Amino acid sequence: MEMTGTNNTQVIFRNYVKGYPKETDFELIKSSLTSLILPPESTAVLLKNLYLACDPYMRHRMSNQISNPGTLINSYTPGSVLVGYGVAKVVQSKHPDFQEGDFVWGLTGWEEYTIIHNPSSLNKIKNIDVPLSYYLGVLGIAGIAAYIGFVHLCSPKAGETVYVSTASGGVGQLVGQFAKMMGCYVVGSVSTEEKVDLAKTNFGYDHVFNYKEEDWGEDLKRYFPQGIDIYFDNVGGQMLDEVLGHMRPHGKIAACGMISQYNLDEPEGVKEMFSIITKRLEIKGYVETDFKHMYQEYIELAVRYLKEGKLVYVEDVAEGLENACSALVGIFYGRNVGKQLVRLADK
Amino acid sequence: MEMTGTNNTQVIFRNYVKGYPKETDFELIKSSLTSLILPPESTAVLLKNLYLACDPYMRHRMSNQISNPGTLINSYTPGSVLVGYGVAKVVQSKHPDFQEGDFVWGLTGWEEYTIIHNPSSLNKIKNIDVPLSYYLGVLGIAGIAAYIGFVHLCSPKAGETVYVSTASGGVGQLVGQFAKMMGCYVVGSVSTEEKVDLAKTNFGYDHVFNYKEEDWGEDLKRYFPQGIDIYFDNVGGQMLDEVLGHMRPHGKIAACGMISQYNLDEPEGVKEMFSIITKRLEIKGYVETDFKHMYQEYIELAVRYLKEGKLVYVEDVAEGLENACSALVGIFYGRNVGKQLVRLADK
Repeated sequence: MEMTGTNNTQVIFRNYVKGYPKETDFELIKSSLTSLILPPESTAVLLKNLYLACDPYMRHRMSNQISNPGTLINSYTPGSVLVGYGVAKVVQSKHPDFQEGDFVWGLTGWEEYTIIHNPSSLNKIKNIDVPLSYYLGVLGIAGIAAYIGFVHLCSPKAGETVYVSTASGGVGQLVGQFAKMMGCYVVGSVSTEEKVDLAKTNFGYDHVFNYKEEDWGEDLKRYFPQGIDIYFDNVGGQMLDEVLGHMRPHGKIAACGMISQYNLDEPEGVKEMFSIITKRLEIKGYVETDFKHMYQEYIELAVRYLKEGKLVYVEDVAEGLENACSALVGIFYGRNVGKQLVRLADK
Repeated sequence: MEMTGTNNTQVIFRNYVKGYPKETDFELIKSSLTSLILPPESTAVLLKNLYLACDPYMRHRMSNQISNPGTLINSYTPGSVLVGYGVAKVVQSKHPDFQEGDFVWGLTGWEEYTIIHNPSSLNKIKNIDVPLSYYLGVLGIAGIAAYIGFVHLCSPKAGETVYVSTASGGVGQLVGQFAKMMGCYVVGSVSTEEKVDLAKTNFGYDHVFNYKEEDWGEDLKRYFPQGIDIYFDNVGGQMLDEVLGHMRPHGKIAACGMISQYNLDEPEGVKEMFSIITKRLEIKGYVETDFKHMYQEYIELAVRYLKEGKLVYVEDVAEGLENACSALVGIFYGRNVGKQLVRLADK
């Protein structure tokens, strides 16, 4: 059993969050490693966490959702270790499917070592000749969200016009590349000039605009004179409202995320709803974890594309748990350039 | 050629409307019949209008849409005869497909006699052993809207829970009956106690509530303790916002109409949009005229159901063009009980 040091550094979720999360909503503590003992009669595994993902959906789990159980998202428990997607190495196993030394990805704790009591929730990593961190991005739920939402739910055709909000984010950068592979015209929006360059140069977007600097409505009119066939929505709110007015008849909207709304006490109202009827729009909400049966198919495809150089992936990696909360808070301000991760160890 | 009197009474659309339409937005005039001469080299037909429909979509054509051409709805021309769906008799024809004495339904003028220059837009009535007025309701676009939106786009299954706003309206009364035929549990909302009784007694709704008297949220919670599988939306706005919070995961929304929004200067914002993602909802906007290839199939089915007594249809009939504008204005206040029509003549 491979463990170093005498402590397990952990990120504790202090209490329910209102508004934007702050670093002080979390606390870094050091627990004793001696508590990390697998129950004798269990099928548990002990993980050494290597990479953690900073994912927008985590914001919901920081809210008190008791009053809104229909959302299917459980709140974090105040005082407990934060939970999120991670890539980890199995350092001890009582489960027949997992051996010491296996690499896995799935929900884990924001801490150095985690006991997983039901390892069937973990995904064993088969292809290890790509960066392991990719299993939190292009080969993880971000990639699956992009693939399911864009390719599977919107069935894009060559020549269709596509708009992607957060064009350089963990999901958006992939939607842009998939759209180009499929012969679409694709335009994205981002929050800085640096990301404009990144999205054009690395991800092949036909046009990218900085939504913080420019008039969205004018940009959308300029770049989509005939309207938008597919909107891949990562932001919701006012941008979704504006986009509805620019959709082409029979257009499709993949509702993947609404990050602009997550830190508001009350969501913004979307007014342009009547366009749904006059333009015969289809809006599809989805959650990538409903498509587990398609994970392996997608991962094999994406690994092949990565090896062939058809797909690239840009990550923004923070170093160590001491920088993890700042990185997590940062994604809600758009500070990350590419998929935001935290590296705890390489192997 | 069968024409009576010496005048053609006409309803003139005076000018673009803001807010709720008023009777004074229209003017009744009498034109000379002598202008009703079919051009010699044309394929025009001359119609004697029997029934006219008061349809909610007509409100959009009363607005100045020039600034919003993407809506695919053309404004009425101020100073011209109002246009809407009607049932009419062909009294003169230069078109090979139409003979004097044929009954037709389609877009016509709000006037006693109308020349249609392109009769291919008209639908010839094949089954005349049902009330002719039905071709403006159960056998016209209202029926097609109900059938396409509910049966075709939502694919309801027995046991699913269905909510219909405007449960006793021209479309809603049919959705309720289709839902019961298909083994669904169906609840509707209406604006008066009279309509509550009508919807329960005539259309078979399991429950009906008066949305003007009660707390929508409480009603929806009470009648849909497990949530709503299918929402057939005729009203949009605040009701749609509330319903989003009551949808069951993987629920479907047919966006048929948004009558609560048509007379507002600015639409209400819909805030509960994030439910689209967390509940994996599908919202489909549609316009029944996109489904012309399915009209005849539907009409034959509905005629059979009507004759077998499986389907009933309730109309609210105003008498004569002098009462037409009051009837049209009334639908935006929910004054009609059942489908609002205007009768000009029986045959």
